[in-house]
Amino acid sequence: MDLADLPGRRCPAAAALELVGDRWSLLVVREVNFGAHRFTRIQEGTGAPRDRLAARLKLLVEAGVLRRERYCEAPERYDYHLTEAGQELVPVLQALRAWGERWACTPGPGTTPTPGA
Amino acid sequence: MDLADLPGRRCPAAAALELVGDRWSLLVVREVNFGAHRFTRIQEGTGAPRDRLAARLKLLVEAGVLRRERYCEAPERYDYHLTEAGQELVPVLQALRAWGERWACTPGPGTTPTPGA
Repeated sequence: MDLADLPGRRCPAAAALELVGDRWSLLVVREVNFGAHRFTRIQEGTGAPRDRLAARLKLLVEAGVLRRERYCEAPERYDYHLTEAGQELVPVLQALRAWGERWACTPGPGTTPTPGA
Repeated sequence: MDLADLPGRRCPAAAALELVGDRWSLLVVREVNFGAHRFTRIQEGTGAPRDRLAARLKLLVEAGVLRRERYCEAPERYDYHLTEAGQELVPVLQALRAWGERWACTPGPGTTPTPGA
């Protein structure tokens, strides 16, 4: 992507978000990294609607984040693997996970003090 | 957020993406971190449409990522600052930037070897 094509500040983070800046993309990377290579398992792990997921997988292959491989000839079936670019998104996910643990998760039962208890 | 409310795998990264998993949110955090506190400057820096930006700023305040402060009484005007949670998104942006530099940017003129040159 040419940074000049981006709206706003020309910045590699914006270019990255142009490719993977939606919730499903990074969750797809997480699932494939966890070993979910087939559509159905990626769908279960992400919870993405099937049509959204199909469109997103196609874009991620075009963006060079995923590689599509045929694992069955008849019927023809494909699964998904991380490319080197995809593997290098894992640190982004780790940073998000660390942030989410601290700022986006409700503490489990027993960890919130009950007023008056 | 209760992880049980998420579709798919219950994971803090998914909870994080529920809050900041769109391109504009992280670009807003980048701009505010760069010192753009007022709506117009955040709008210029992100390139986000004004209505989308206004809605997103509201959500980021509700999510505890931004703090809205009054800087002018009459007319009443507000600007935006990173909370502690917002500041802790900076490493996520840095990871995205590193990835974007390597995988999402077209090399500038002169950096691509010209065949036959």
